[in-house]
Amino acid sequence: MQGAVLYGPRDVRFEEREAPKIIKPTDAVIRLSATCICGSDLWPFRGIQPIAQPTQMGHEYCGIVEEVGKEVKKIKPGQFVVGSFATSDNTCVICQHGYQSSCVRREFMSAAQASVLRVPLPDGTLVATDDLPPKELIPSLLATSDVLGTGWFAAEAANVKPGSTVVVVGDGAVGLLGVLSAKQMGAERIIAMSRHASRQKLAREFGATDIVTERGDEGIARIKELTKGVGADSVLECVGTQESMMQAINSTRPGGYIGYVGVPHGVSLDVEQLFYSHVHLHGGPAPVRRYLPELIELVLDRKINPGKVFDLTLPLDQVAEGYRAMDERRAIKTLLRPNGTN
Amino acid sequence: MQGAVLYGPRDVRFEEREAPKIIKPTDAVIRLSATCICGSDLWPFRGIQPIAQPTQMGHEYCGIVEEVGKEVKKIKPGQFVVGSFATSDNTCVICQHGYQSSCVRREFMSAAQASVLRVPLPDGTLVATDDLPPKELIPSLLATSDVLGTGWFAAEAANVKPGSTVVVVGDGAVGLLGVLSAKQMGAERIIAMSRHASRQKLAREFGATDIVTERGDEGIARIKELTKGVGADSVLECVGTQESMMQAINSTRPGGYIGYVGVPHGVSLDVEQLFYSHVHLHGGPAPVRRYLPELIELVLDRKINPGKVFDLTLPLDQVAEGYRAMDERRAIKTLLRPNGTN
Repeated sequence: MQGAVLYGPRDVRFEEREAPKIIKPTDAVIRLSATCICGSDLWPFRGIQPIAQPTQMGHEYCGIVEEVGKEVKKIKPGQFVVGSFATSDNTCVICQHGYQSSCVRREFMSAAQASVLRVPLPDGTLVATDDLPPKELIPSLLATSDVLGTGWFAAEAANVKPGSTVVVVGDGAVGLLGVLSAKQMGAERIIAMSRHASRQKLAREFGATDIVTERGDEGIARIKELTKGVGADSVLECVGTQESMMQAINSTRPGGYIGYVGVPHGVSLDVEQLFYSHVHLHGGPAPVRRYLPELIELVLDRKINPGKVFDLTLPLDQVAEGYRAMDERRAIKTLLRPNGTN
Repeated sequence: MQGAVLYGPRDVRFEEREAPKIIKPTDAVIRLSATCICGSDLWPFRGIQPIAQPTQMGHEYCGIVEEVGKEVKKIKPGQFVVGSFATSDNTCVICQHGYQSSCVRREFMSAAQASVLRVPLPDGTLVATDDLPPKELIPSLLATSDVLGTGWFAAEAANVKPGSTVVVVGDGAVGLLGVLSAKQMGAERIIAMSRHASRQKLAREFGATDIVTERGDEGIARIKELTKGVGADSVLECVGTQESMMQAINSTRPGGYIGYVGVPHGVSLDVEQLFYSHVHLHGGPAPVRRYLPELIELVLDRKINPGKVFDLTLPLDQVAEGYRAMDERRAIKTLLRPNGTN
């Protein structure tokens, strides 16, 4: 079996490795229908987040269960499943509070940019559909595994409600699906911050009512102009840099909410400034497992089409080109088709 | 008229100054029934927060209205009133969202450690009682002006609900009234972190079910032991130092809430650590005006007795001794009686 391995900055190789198999009786092995490249994969790809050793990449996945360990009770071979990028038992006290991505038994998934994948704790990590889904819905189902689930969490953490005014910082795939999520949650006004024509277009398709191209102080001034001078009710921070976090804080009205889901890289906050901003701040690794049943249903009912963020589809063996296209912003997000599933 | 003026570290003087009067037609002047010293007054008193010039101190107050400007519509001379430490018009879009302490017309009050006080925007800042209250309730009514309102905000920002498990970091007057607030909001378990016998006793009177004397890693370990290994639902951060903020973050379960009201002094947060902690963070200057009607009613109905935090009462002219007693932790909080109102 072959999969993607990152050796160092900009060095992704597609190479032969041992096929995944059941290691623990609580494991499953699934054959992937589709996988993809995450914005967060670009941090190590760019060398900003160094890796200690060659690393099997990928954590977004959906596919058909091939085999389950003998302690797996719910998930069955032959089922189509979508899983979260974080494993969970879905029973511990943290899971019960809806934070499966901080489960006491959490492992962060990797090695999903491959044709076959081992998934620990499938009963608590995977959600199966009743039937095999139509092929054309695979991209949208794949999106629920992380990128949509993360945009959804950003919107929920930012307390988006019917009638809310929302700002989305970041026009990557997560930000764009944050727009879609805010729209689904009934936001009245959704301001997408974006400078890229193709992303602006998709933001509008997903429900953005306004586009702000300015950044920094000018961006803040423009947001204030659009929000009665005080800032937005809800701001989704979908980047993870100091600049994007400050943009978010300064775009939120006193008493408003920030949902931050961009994995922070070198971001620090002066708490005195945060204190006087009067914002609510919540974020972290999205508890995708909490949302999967609802998001899968929205996709199967064709109420949402998050798969539109995949503007490049490649055979899995061209994974390196997929990274380059995203790195150079030629593609928003790359979907990868394992051989034989195109 | 005389009042307290801070000249520099540990140099509070009680001195003659011009009597407050109506300056703008939207002002009121009130004769104070009682005033007090705030924990936040100790920052400049100790020189940790330097002052640029001699500063009239005090921002907690209640009393009888003497005079109002000609544009004041609701507040009348002769009424007993309590006000917030932050003025507000109570009509702007931020006030409408309940964040009066970030009102577009906000001024932070000062000069309340005196017998007479000018209050800007009394219609939006003060709340009047129907009748003159019984004298024995004055301390508790004074407490609603800041210290109780701030503890209440901490508990609300920390999402305290019936059945919640709550940790209170800080055993100053705000922390102790955070305990009272959490109890009122129906918390099932309230863990007060305190090393001082007299404060532990008052915490228990206000509703604390457990006392933790350990701090730092030991304190965190003890909290985890008491909370199913995962941390509390709600944590009230009532100090404002790096140590207290880290204590709060590490005492909260993933998905739990921190309400922070200690004015931060030199506190900074690594957002990556915050991200993986999965906590909700909210705080700032308490929007006391939002809570005043409810808190005053609870006091008048004798359902709560927040005035118990005043364990030292002095005539106003002994204000300097009041500061010293709090600085040396001989007193939790000092109530000051203007001459003639004892």
